[in-house]
Amino acid sequence: MKTVNAHCRQFQKHLTKLKVDGYWVSHIPDLFYLTGYGAEGCWGLFGKKRAAMFVPMLAVEQAAALSKGFEIVQLKKLSEVFGMVSDYAVKAGWKTIGYDPYRTPEAYILGLRKVSGNKVKWVPAPGATTPLRVKKDSKELKAMRGAGHVVIQGFNYIKRIARPGMRECDLAAEFEAFIRKHGAIKSSFDSIVAAGENAAYPHYITGDRILRKNDMVLCDIGTLVDGYCSDLTRTFFLGTISPLGRKVYDTVARAQKLAIQAVKPGVKAAQIDRIARDEIERAGYGRRFIHSTGHGVGVEIHEAPWVGATSQDVLEAGMVITVEPGIYLQGWGGVRIEDTLLVTNRGHEILTK
Amino acid sequence: MKTVNAHCRQFQKHLTKLKVDGYWVSHIPDLFYLTGYGAEGCWGLFGKKRAAMFVPMLAVEQAAALSKGFEIVQLKKLSEVFGMVSDYAVKAGWKTIGYDPYRTPEAYILGLRKVSGNKVKWVPAPGATTPLRVKKDSKELKAMRGAGHVVIQGFNYIKRIARPGMRECDLAAEFEAFIRKHGAIKSSFDSIVAAGENAAYPHYITGDRILRKNDMVLCDIGTLVDGYCSDLTRTFFLGTISPLGRKVYDTVARAQKLAIQAVKPGVKAAQIDRIARDEIERAGYGRRFIHSTGHGVGVEIHEAPWVGATSQDVLEAGMVITVEPGIYLQGWGGVRIEDTLLVTNRGHEILTK
Repeated sequence: MKTVNAHCRQFQKHLTKLKVDGYWVSHIPDLFYLTGYGAEGCWGLFGKKRAAMFVPMLAVEQAAALSKGFEIVQLKKLSEVFGMVSDYAVKAGWKTIGYDPYRTPEAYILGLRKVSGNKVKWVPAPGATTPLRVKKDSKELKAMRGAGHVVIQGFNYIKRIARPGMRECDLAAEFEAFIRKHGAIKSSFDSIVAAGENAAYPHYITGDRILRKNDMVLCDIGTLVDGYCSDLTRTFFLGTISPLGRKVYDTVARAQKLAIQAVKPGVKAAQIDRIARDEIERAGYGRRFIHSTGHGVGVEIHEAPWVGATSQDVLEAGMVITVEPGIYLQGWGGVRIEDTLLVTNRGHEILTK
Repeated sequence: MKTVNAHCRQFQKHLTKLKVDGYWVSHIPDLFYLTGYGAEGCWGLFGKKRAAMFVPMLAVEQAAALSKGFEIVQLKKLSEVFGMVSDYAVKAGWKTIGYDPYRTPEAYILGLRKVSGNKVKWVPAPGATTPLRVKKDSKELKAMRGAGHVVIQGFNYIKRIARPGMRECDLAAEFEAFIRKHGAIKSSFDSIVAAGENAAYPHYITGDRILRKNDMVLCDIGTLVDGYCSDLTRTFFLGTISPLGRKVYDTVARAQKLAIQAVKPGVKAAQIDRIARDEIERAGYGRRFIHSTGHGVGVEIHEAPWVGATSQDVLEAGMVITVEPGIYLQGWGGVRIEDTLLVTNRGHEILTK
């Protein structure tokens, strides 16, 4: 049997630190990270020397093809699935098994505890995969550089074709088609194309508002390449920019530039947030910067480290984060500028380029 | 204050049956169903006479705009969020609050129990929204008819333009762009375009395989309109169909037709599965029909009722289900044919038309 992939081998070593014999995963992004395959209804059980994937019948052959080195166990009826996982652990001689209580529905863990009685102890171990996932290896960075490159190409394309009379959803459709023809499998999240006053909602749901002359157009878009995300926001004006638009835009641009300049190993993530926030506060818009400055990116579009005021994270080489300050004025609109950055030994590298 | 929407009012009445004073929701599709707005990091707390949404700062204005009649509570630091929910319940005088243990991470419910001590009892009530969500009202059906119409138009479009030399992902991109320009906000799930041997994986991940002459092309696609999903699968041959292809295709087509003909109120969902499976077994492919015959569709692409061998569900007018038998032969490919159907008083109505 072929051995499992590098992420899983690294995690298997990590189990010793967690003081558990095994770890149970139901969160799909964790499963994808550890096995190369993750889909609805699939679980993973990882021990120090062996690892299994529990998958429904329809995914057995696909999991076997994509995840080499794992034992593939076909999940049967819903009433038996917890027993199958527990039996596997008991047969493997594992007494304590960790799981992430923030990622595991209560009924699942109660079900596992019930069937395994006193044979297996199920131990909450939140964020067990985070120390591994937070630092990207060369294979992951190759995918993320690819994702960063496609998304900026996609943005340049829709900016070029944007015209008054088009709808927000038309631009989103053009972006989606472009990136899929240029190496991305799909968007990494629902594209936000917000015109005019809609740009005041940071997580606006793209609709059919028609783009008008002189509208601001906020595009928050991302791509998925080989399972890894990119995240980019640009705001442009379809014609003339108003004095208010100029002031808001320049403030956000300065805040983003200053925050990016500070990104290097050893810096607290909260400090990056502070730098961007200070600049926006100086311009008098502090209360209209209504979210964190950024977040980590990887298999998930939002993951550790967290770049906000209360974050305890410290930047390390290999981390990938966004820096995305914004100013939002109800009834008028908003401006956000965002890039995805890799923290390098010397400072940082912008991936969305 | 405007009153809450009809779904929430109906659910508020349902709380009496559940024998709870309130219900706590963290599952986004349930939140969307009950409030009209659901997004990452948002929660809902529903009592018999009042209801609140707990949302992060960046979503406060959007939630207020989209969800009329709800109290909007801004979530603060992570360390305080459980306390905010508990305090709300205590102030409202609610002693018992239900939640769905299959949809609620263990750490959330432990956190709520810890902060509320003996003031509030948190009671597992799995599937509490299911009796409501399972039967679609006229507004939901309008969206679902729209979604069903756009997806078949999208399929007809990509079938027409499919040519040898295109890649699977090119067809998926064309579908995505088409539906977004014709009334869908996006796909309701990752489009599956599987050519040739790739069609053997029911949940194939669309890639860059080039379409060749005489390939079978399996397209499992869906659209989202006003928050509701459609689900459609068609399999076609890019040129000449082989004798094996003909036999497999005709078997699946017969199985689907027979199963659809049986769809009407009062019939057990397991019976629909049995009819399709019998026909495929008769042709000798029983072991290659490796999934259930169908599933419910609505806010989620997979929801109750379940159309499989072990399902206990009985069809009722207003339910929306898929019927999608398939045959999969490793190394050769596969055929699946799927429509989304509404169960009507007289029988059924195909929505994917």
